[in-house]
Amino acid sequence: MRAAAYTGNATVETVERTPVPPGPGQVQIAVAYVGLCGTDLHVLHGDMDARVATPAVLGHEMSGTVAAVGPGTTGVSPGDRVTVMPLDWDGTCPACLAGHQHVCQNLTFIGIDSPGALQQWWNVPARCVVPLPAGLTLRHGALVEPVAVAVHDVRRADVRHGERVVVIGGGPIGVLVASVAREFGATAAVVEIDGGRRERAAALGFETVDPAAVDQAAWVREWTEGAGADAVFEVSGAEAAVLAATSLLRVRGRLTVVAIHGQPRPVDLHRVFWRELTLLGARVYERRDFETAAELLARGVIPADELITAVVPLARTADAFAQLDAGRALKVLVDVGAEEAAA
Amino acid sequence: MRAAAYTGNATVETVERTPVPPGPGQVQIAVAYVGLCGTDLHVLHGDMDARVATPAVLGHEMSGTVAAVGPGTTGVSPGDRVTVMPLDWDGTCPACLAGHQHVCQNLTFIGIDSPGALQQWWNVPARCVVPLPAGLTLRHGALVEPVAVAVHDVRRADVRHGERVVVIGGGPIGVLVASVAREFGATAAVVEIDGGRRERAAALGFETVDPAAVDQAAWVREWTEGAGADAVFEVSGAEAAVLAATSLLRVRGRLTVVAIHGQPRPVDLHRVFWRELTLLGARVYERRDFETAAELLARGVIPADELITAVVPLARTADAFAQLDAGRALKVLVDVGAEEAAA
Repeated sequence: MRAAAYTGNATVETVERTPVPPGPGQVQIAVAYVGLCGTDLHVLHGDMDARVATPAVLGHEMSGTVAAVGPGTTGVSPGDRVTVMPLDWDGTCPACLAGHQHVCQNLTFIGIDSPGALQQWWNVPARCVVPLPAGLTLRHGALVEPVAVAVHDVRRADVRHGERVVVIGGGPIGVLVASVAREFGATAAVVEIDGGRRERAAALGFETVDPAAVDQAAWVREWTEGAGADAVFEVSGAEAAVLAATSLLRVRGRLTVVAIHGQPRPVDLHRVFWRELTLLGARVYERRDFETAAELLARGVIPADELITAVVPLARTADAFAQLDAGRALKVLVDVGAEEAAA
Repeated sequence: MRAAAYTGNATVETVERTPVPPGPGQVQIAVAYVGLCGTDLHVLHGDMDARVATPAVLGHEMSGTVAAVGPGTTGVSPGDRVTVMPLDWDGTCPACLAGHQHVCQNLTFIGIDSPGALQQWWNVPARCVVPLPAGLTLRHGALVEPVAVAVHDVRRADVRHGERVVVIGGGPIGVLVASVAREFGATAAVVEIDGGRRERAAALGFETVDPAAVDQAAWVREWTEGAGADAVFEVSGAEAAVLAATSLLRVRGRLTVVAIHGQPRPVDLHRVFWRELTLLGARVYERRDFETAAELLARGVIPADELITAVVPLARTADAFAQLDAGRALKVLVDVGAEEAAA
């Protein structure tokens, strides 16, 4: 079978591999589509070389069809259309014992710490497999993972019906967070410095704010009749955005840190104190977030087609990364085409 | 009557005032004891001159006996032993309408924004008056306000029975937070750089850690069998403590910012993300915090006598401030002695 592997030095190559039958408790999936994300790009740039053993088959946003199940595997059958929640926890650390398996202290992230979905037949633990609802295409099914990130963020922030939320950063995750917040009953505004992204967010029906042109705190104050936003999502990763975020929140408002900040960031702790704000970390997802994400995609309330800016065949995975790198693309899917290959 | 007033230029003077009868909805209290706190010291140092109109009668930690009630005042009677929750909210701002009156967007803090308790007869709105339980002396009653701060902090952190909490900073508020957390069923450790304060905390039965001598993160890890602390309270105000605090917490642990940080502080947002931490602001108190504080003091579970390092007469209020300033005292009470003066 064919696979795409990161081989070091910012290089992705197509390689030939021999498929392995699924082991006990495993499921073998004929991979359909794989989405590439910012983390994959970090791997490609060598930022995670200390963690990733090369050659590394990446890919953790995917859809496919179950091809076979290993000995003792129940609840999943060949032919099932599925996606994979790419988390493998130890089940024994204090975080797991407290019920927070998704942030296990020794979490293995499948597709980074172990082989990912950029291969035609992929074996994963059965407990990671999540069925796709009947109405959801395999193409859109590859978006379940990033949508689940957004669902988890919105759930962590405890967004309620009727609330006003601000999303700082209008990239793919920002748009997904705003879309999920809207489905949870909130009204969302997107703060974004890039005009093209603002237009895209506006076309999806969100209020947009250009923080370079407008006093965003004053804008939010007026938008919320003097109260401030109920929740803010920091999705931009910018230092200035973290400082601005606290200025947008109402008394007891919640700031969810979605972006990865590689170094400590100045936070206005006086404002946190003064307004009794809550600042929350949100990482990956829990199984119910995956299930909600699949349901939202099946219902068509996530702008999936607007997000998928290109679909390329497996052999051109390197091109897909290049598009992503150039910032021209939102979400690029790799068409792994295992089923067609088998047909 | 006599009062102590801040008159500018780091000066406190004893002044003569004419008592005013309580107005409609007001209560006149014969003040017994007034505790001085760090905020009063900030006022004395001129840090709050933009906010405080001189001469300013300070004092917001107090106890006393109701001397008279104004027209239309109900629920309070002359002779009642009381303390005062020194908050005055507008009742109409978005925060008040959402039920968070204690952090009203236009909050008036009595004793800073309006005259305080360092006067023999003090008029306050009846809704601020909180009765002292039968078993609580007037002397200990002056500690209800700072204990209420600690109760509010521990409630904001949602400390539960059986949890392990770390308090960074072993001053009066740190010791009170640790004491309240213990009463809420948690085990508390105090991180404190000063040897004398560590000894005092240890004598009160708390685990203590010297962060200059011990790797505090490793210590907490071992203390919590690899999990990390359930809650951390940042009471020190130090920049380094904020960075350290996140390293001490378990997955989904809560960091409560109690100290006032005058400028933005670097926060390890990657750790906040990675462990899905929560960072909370906690400011002043709600009425039920005052009531719980009075009850805890009455039950003798707060180390009140250990905290009160001096009691001075009203005429020597300046000396009380000097003791506090020199860092030699924990809590200094001013004996206003209105009842004795009246007798």
